[in-house]
Amino acid sequence: MARLAVFVDARDRPGMLSEITAAIHRLGGNVVTSMGYSLEGGRARLLLIVDVDREPDEVVEAVRSVAGEDARVEAAELGPDAAGLLAEFIEDKPGIVTVLESYLDPPDIMDALLRLPEHVRKRIYPMLSSSVLAYLLSEGDEDTVKEILESVKIRDIVDAVQWLDPDEAVDVLQKLPEQTRRAVLQMLPEELRSQLSSLLRYPPETAGGIMTTSVPVVDADATVQDALQLLRRGEYDVKDVIVVVEGDGKLYGLVPVDELLRAKPETPLRKIARRPPVTVEPEEDQEEVARLMLRYEIRRLPVVDRDNRFLGIVAIEDVAYVLAEEAAEDVAKLGGVFEKPRERYLHASVLDLVKTRLPWLLLIYLVESVTASVIKGYEDVIERIAVAAAFIPLIMDTGGNIGSQASSTIVRALALGEISERNRRDVIYTVLKELATAAVVGSVLASIGFVFAYLIGHNARLALSIAATLFIVVIFADVIGASLPIIARRLGLDPAAISSPFVTTIVDVSVAIIYLNLVAKLVLGL
Amino acid sequence: MARLAVFVDARDRPGMLSEITAAIHRLGGNVVTSMGYSLEGGRARLLLIVDVDREPDEVVEAVRSVAGEDARVEAAELGPDAAGLLAEFIEDKPGIVTVLESYLDPPDIMDALLRLPEHVRKRIYPMLSSSVLAYLLSEGDEDTVKEILESVKIRDIVDAVQWLDPDEAVDVLQKLPEQTRRAVLQMLPEELRSQLSSLLRYPPETAGGIMTTSVPVVDADATVQDALQLLRRGEYDVKDVIVVVEGDGKLYGLVPVDELLRAKPETPLRKIARRPPVTVEPEEDQEEVARLMLRYEIRRLPVVDRDNRFLGIVAIEDVAYVLAEEAAEDVAKLGGVFEKPRERYLHASVLDLVKTRLPWLLLIYLVESVTASVIKGYEDVIERIAVAAAFIPLIMDTGGNIGSQASSTIVRALALGEISERNRRDVIYTVLKELATAAVVGSVLASIGFVFAYLIGHNARLALSIAATLFIVVIFADVIGASLPIIARRLGLDPAAISSPFVTTIVDVSVAIIYLNLVAKLVLGL
Repeated sequence: MARLAVFVDARDRPGMLSEITAAIHRLGGNVVTSMGYSLEGGRARLLLIVDVDREPDEVVEAVRSVAGEDARVEAAELGPDAAGLLAEFIEDKPGIVTVLESYLDPPDIMDALLRLPEHVRKRIYPMLSSSVLAYLLSEGDEDTVKEILESVKIRDIVDAVQWLDPDEAVDVLQKLPEQTRRAVLQMLPEELRSQLSSLLRYPPETAGGIMTTSVPVVDADATVQDALQLLRRGEYDVKDVIVVVEGDGKLYGLVPVDELLRAKPETPLRKIARRPPVTVEPEEDQEEVARLMLRYEIRRLPVVDRDNRFLGIVAIEDVAYVLAEEAAEDVAKLGGVFEKPRERYLHASVLDLVKTRLPWLLLIYLVESVTASVIKGYEDVIERIAVAAAFIPLIMDTGGNIGSQASSTIVRALALGEISERNRRDVIYTVLKELATAAVVGSVLASIGFVFAYLIGHNARLALSIAATLFIVVIFADVIGASLPIIARRLGLDPAAISSPFVTTIVDVSVAIIYLNLVAKLVLGL
Repeated sequence: MARLAVFVDARDRPGMLSEITAAIHRLGGNVVTSMGYSLEGGRARLLLIVDVDREPDEVVEAVRSVAGEDARVEAAELGPDAAGLLAEFIEDKPGIVTVLESYLDPPDIMDALLRLPEHVRKRIYPMLSSSVLAYLLSEGDEDTVKEILESVKIRDIVDAVQWLDPDEAVDVLQKLPEQTRRAVLQMLPEELRSQLSSLLRYPPETAGGIMTTSVPVVDADATVQDALQLLRRGEYDVKDVIVVVEGDGKLYGLVPVDELLRAKPETPLRKIARRPPVTVEPEEDQEEVARLMLRYEIRRLPVVDRDNRFLGIVAIEDVAYVLAEEAAEDVAKLGGVFEKPRERYLHASVLDLVKTRLPWLLLIYLVESVTASVIKGYEDVIERIAVAAAFIPLIMDTGGNIGSQASSTIVRALALGEISERNRRDVIYTVLKELATAAVVGSVLASIGFVFAYLIGHNARLALSIAATLFIVVIFADVIGASLPIIARRLGLDPAAISSPFVTTIVDVSVAIIYLNLVAKLVLGL
């Protein structure tokens, strides 16, 4: 059963809505809600939210059959697919958002808003409920937050922030300009303010930045009954475990809630709390935290200061967001988009896109001019045997690709902790294994390369030069590709950043030199 | 405070261990445990597990100062870095694993084992406790499982499987050969067997494959007290929510455990259960499930059949593993390693590595031979102006890189649901935005390219051909790079698989044709 948004733009006539509803019933569907407004020229627009077990196209057909041939009907599953038609429906009557809000989830509202012109969005922000505004502030990019600040009252921001978990609220505060942040903090309730102020000390991409402080904390001398009482009183972000501390706030241990339920009410917590296998300090990088939690299958990781005083919990669900973000970043980096995109694609101006892409391209340019100069140095070789030039891209691409294959294999092995960049034996093992792999791959490619080159160029000596270059370059590129991530890690850099395009560039210059020298010697006898 | 493994290989003498312990105390450290054995020739090996707030190097120095100048001392933080020295310590006395087990986490044991020769590993498997064996079966690659099956009794596998959560146990069963799987199932307790048998029906990468069935389930007519009773009796994988079903097993709703604690004991669950905003069917792809849960911030997603009967829960922590795996796969794919690696890097033979890399390289080869043939067709052009060949790699690389930049930007926007491949307006918007971006980037690169080319080649007409080619290719590559992921998604393919090398290859052939034609016309007037 899927939930669809159905958009209708048709000539207005009495009874149309009930006929459409009937048509949807005939498909076995159920209309959750419908809303509409009239346009000039006797037309009307309707939006229906429908639960139905049919494809959107079938629903469109059924609705068009009653709305009339000249009606424009669209349907899409709620979610990203529906954003476009929701935006169109909202654009002419922004006030309708206050109705739509009750039937849509905040991400769906956000996606629709992003497709509207800025001036319409700015009219809509003040109408939104605090919970939706909270979502937009929390998940929106810098431009979204800026637009919201320009169009709502500070009181609205304060109300919205209170809807969020403390770790999300801190992220929002960090997006606000200094002055607004202070004003918002001032207007928050005392308890929340002090909690957020202490969280604000940690950078967003650290354990302190992603931990939650909304955790039940009980003294070690309290009893099971006391802990249950605490759980009953407050709503916590972490519900399945209680944190046990000693008098001075030092972490003593954790008790899962099911054990709490099993224990006798008068048992002191000191007796049943289990010491956590690992803790981290708040400055620890979030990627390191994610690796640790996945490796040791930890769901609730306590964050403590140098004196073991309890600060908060990193929950595995927050790590899921970290991982999703990292995955997206790695994809961007491997594609040569270095700067972390600050805006959503729909928000990014052409100039923003140019800014993230141009620097890398200019770098490539600079290095490839070296390649060009190197090749130019062999102008006489190419003049004498022009066909030799035809194979340069083939050899360069092969080298570049094997380099990036080796890189990505090693980046993965390092990320999963299968090999360690600090263990000398692992490094030697890796280099030897890659050498052996490259020798096999190089032999195969050199043999096939010889045949290919001979078929295309009809010159055995040229084919031999190509095969020899391929063999050397494959080994060279593989070892470079495998070593760079290890070196990057040892230098504390991100191995994904030392990525395929970088390897490609190193390889290209070497190819030019090795290949054209071989051609000069073997083919031309220079 | 870090936990280190300290390895010592030294001339044996009485009192050495207590001197080393004292040295570590002087550093403010604490020796958690120590073990050792004698070697031939009067040497001894020690391994200490130490909690200390110093760098490994400082510990090594302190220990060496008491163990003697000819002692070999190594230290590393527990985790991947320590795997090498743990392996060395185990190799000569495999039985020591039974002692080490109590002080190490299963992932650390596994990493050490992977560094041992196969015959040593096979001696160790039968000595391991069921919980560690369970971890190895669950997290190990195909080869690990095969080795374990060859060296332990089926009873050991049965004992190990019972240590795992049902969803992990199913993954292990799916790795076993048909006959062993049946034998293991036969020997499991009745209840677990029927649970696992029903889970075995779902492929591993679906909602059914990653869901857990270890969830408290209560009838809607039962009371809060009944539900608390159930939580007290059993240990569940999901502890923070109970699932409420109606008489026929249909999902009625969920109740968070803190609400359960707040409610009056005699309240019927029907009254406080909340209907979940979303459910999925067991066949749903795990990536789709991950996107859904992240988008709507769902921590506990119920899996139901077509008739809304409750089957299990996908927990956000399981999604974290899915995301980590996907991230690794994307890195591999973008690097041109297509087949999902079945083995860990340390296990993979050279032949395995060759097999994952060669197919892609051969494909590149095939297409680049086309490039080579195309360039060869312009042999006369190159013969007359050899320097033209020098710029081919520069133009090709630029085109390839802008293509992969556009691809990765769009892959990311699609993955985050910012744009939808099914929304016609989004597609048009994307293409237009990329066209505009490409026009700006192309103009900049063409201008700089003209200057570069003139400085290197001293030929204005050649520089003009290069600039013109750059402009055309940048636009072409950007649009191709942006469109391919959208087309891939519409065809139901993985957009990351249609990756940069693929774009590069399309671009290269076009570059050859456009550029050499322009050179022929503009420079040589052919």
